Amino acid sequence: MSATEFFTALSVSEALAGFRPDRRTGTEQVDRDAALGRVPAAPVTSSAALPGFARSTVDGYAVRAADTYGASDALPAYFDLIGSVRMGTAADVAVRPGSAVQVPTGAVIPPEADAVVMVEHTQITMPEVIEVTRPIAVGDGIVRADEDVAIGAELAPAGRALRAQDLGLLAAAGVRRVEVCERPRVGVISTGDEVVPPETPELSPGQVRDATASALAALVVEAGGEPSPRGIVPDDPRALSTTLEAATRDCDVVVISAGSSVGARDETVAAVESLSDARLYCHGLAIKPGKPTLLAERAGVPIIGLPGNPLSALVVFRMVGLPVLRLVGGITHPPAEPTTTASMSRAVASAAGRLDVVQVRVREGVASPLFGASALLSLLTSADGYVVIPEAATGLDERATVTVTMYR
Amino acid sequence: MSATEFFTALSVSEALAGFRPDRRTGTEQVDRDAALGRVPAAPVTSSAALPGFARSTVDGYAVRAADTYGASDALPAYFDLIGSVRMGTAADVAVRPGSAVQVPTGAVIPPEADAVVMVEHTQITMPEVIEVTRPIAVGDGIVRADEDVAIGAELAPAGRALRAQDLGLLAAAGVRRVEVCERPRVGVISTGDEVVPPETPELSPGQVRDATASALAALVVEAGGEPSPRGIVPDDPRALSTTLEAATRDCDVVVISAGSSVGARDETVAAVESLSDARLYCHGLAIKPGKPTLLAERAGVPIIGLPGNPLSALVVFRMVGLPVLRLVGGITHPPAEPTTTASMSRAVASAAGRLDVVQVRVREGVASPLFGASALLSLLTSADGYVVIPEAATGLDERATVTVTMYR
Repeated sequence: MSATEFFTALSVSEALAGFRPDRRTGTEQVDRDAALGRVPAAPVTSSAALPGFARSTVDGYAVRAADTYGASDALPAYFDLIGSVRMGTAADVAVRPGSAVQVPTGAVIPPEADAVVMVEHTQITMPEVIEVTRPIAVGDGIVRADEDVAIGAELAPAGRALRAQDLGLLAAAGVRRVEVCERPRVGVISTGDEVVPPETPELSPGQVRDATASALAALVVEAGGEPSPRGIVPDDPRALSTTLEAATRDCDVVVISAGSSVGARDETVAAVESLSDARLYCHGLAIKPGKPTLLAERAGVPIIGLPGNPLSALVVFRMVGLPVLRLVGGITHPPAEPTTTASMSRAVASAAGRLDVVQVRVREGVASPLFGASALLSLLTSADGYVVIPEAATGLDERATVTVTMYR
Repeated sequence: MSATEFFTALSVSEALAGFRPDRRTGTEQVDRDAALGRVPAAPVTSSAALPGFARSTVDGYAVRAADTYGASDALPAYFDLIGSVRMGTAADVAVRPGSAVQVPTGAVIPPEADAVVMVEHTQITMPEVIEVTRPIAVGDGIVRADEDVAIGAELAPAGRALRAQDLGLLAAAGVRRVEVCERPRVGVISTGDEVVPPETPELSPGQVRDATASALAALVVEAGGEPSPRGIVPDDPRALSTTLEAATRDCDVVVISAGSSVGARDETVAAVESLSDARLYCHGLAIKPGKPTLLAERAGVPIIGLPGNPLSALVVFRMVGLPVLRLVGGITHPPAEPTTTASMSRAVASAAGRLDVVQVRVREGVASPLFGASALLSLLTSADGYVVIPEAATGLDERATVTVTMYR
């Protein structure tokens, strides 16, 4: 098949729904305290009930609730204080009718007690005797032994990155290791005769340092992947083909930031087509910036060919690449994105059928679109976030209320 | 000074404005590719202009714009094609009046050219001659040598964590290392006779595994800090005092998750007061959950005493501890939080003067508050986010529109 027959721009929503290569990462065991942001491969369930014993939620006295019936300031109920429970130990005394046992917050409820009266609702007028001035109900002041988590209950779902509180609950349940999806390994290939490593101290005329690879690697890390830098390949289909062949063998996802010229873009297509088992899914997406995006796969490994312009490349990778990365890495519940609501400072036009991603600065609830003569990277670093103009819309009016996705 | 005289609940806003211990982390140099999320200690400026040379933004022909004056389909302007510029190399030919040099996107603009006409607006009818069918203006199709970044311009501001695109721009400018604020080292102390390490396989009656320390460590990592686990201290003021003394010497911030009983909380106060140079800032915050929060400092190092209940501890650390951590770690521009707008499924009452943090689930734009008989950790892991009821408000009405801060 030729490159040109595929150069019909597909909509982003079609691409996201239709481009679903088979590749999935394997699973591995990690220590709980290294599992922040990792994605459980299966629901994590509890082998124990939590808190594991009936516990007091207040500082007070464990009693039988029935014994407080009718108690009031005027007519307190009297209890013999027959002992106390120390934190972290079993109760060594049972509560008999008319008796009470002192319990601090978090302590074990002694046998035969069914409620705890708060210390604020008691008085001690004689040694070993307490007065209770309010009636309480069965269960007051008590957490049941399985009220936080029952045996077999889910501690954390599959497919959602573990959060701080999840790790807390796993710790409470004594879970030491978690079965998680391996981080997707993302091959990052840069192409272009003009592109040199960022470490190059002095540039010759016409050379530019590789900005995209560093930024892509950071986006991959943020999304839970592991970047695998594959260096810079000159504008030569055979060199690119060799690099691509190795990357698709070693990685779970491969990203190419293409050279910026039409010729360089065609070379990416040629290189993909030269691989055995490769399938070109689309060449051209209805997105601005980012139209010359290529999606392909080889033996299930997604290949994402990004535009040569660094800004366009980063926009497309965020919109199209990250969802693919999550798919491969087992994330079925993507994390919430920071957003803010703002009013557009001016109108922005868009073409129906095309997704527009507009970089904005946000000041006091007003989003000002950033445009330059050209799509330069400094525009992206000056932006606080971006506004998406959906495919169905033909633009945004001045003062339109928009949701801005904020960069972290 | 005694503990009780300070047990007047301070408002959270007063605490955030007033509790500003002097401690700041030092600075260190890190490699650019390890700098994601790190905080520049000073603005990073560029020693070079970017892109560094006048560059073509299109595939086309570099010309003198004046030569295209009046060109149209009917009356094209004719140019002698006198050469081409290869990607990544200097131009070896200057553009004379009436001549054109072929340039791919991203190539060097040859001397004497002041515009680039897109290939789409040209035709080749004779060898070495191109027809231009549209007039263009000076500067069309060209990015100036310093249009992305001027020499001395700011590549990244101080005090804001570096994002993916910032690393891209630093790479483009050849920045190899960045001077950043050191990660704040956060001592995490757990207390309570009932608390045992999460690794404990079997619990004795009354024991609970330490959930808070693991979750706090994860929150510290997320916020750019470095947790320094200090273990579990029994409910004994001298043991706590010794641990606290060492932690305030070694760390930039110290967090104590107190035992849950009143006695354990008083012991935290006693331990703080026993330290030389320590100052109790407040004991008691007008926040729900989380009232028994203690703020103190020792020789400028903030000490945050959290409630014993893990849910309350995590809520307070998020609301009060993270801002302190950012202050110490040089973050003056905090990252945007993920939020969503939702409608409350039911009314929630609050007391005026108190900040309420309500955990919610969000389904299809409706936020349902999660309440339990007790504030159990599973409530926090079931939540999608939280709603803050500000101090001035006395509650939220059913169907009130609220901003939910989403957990990632």
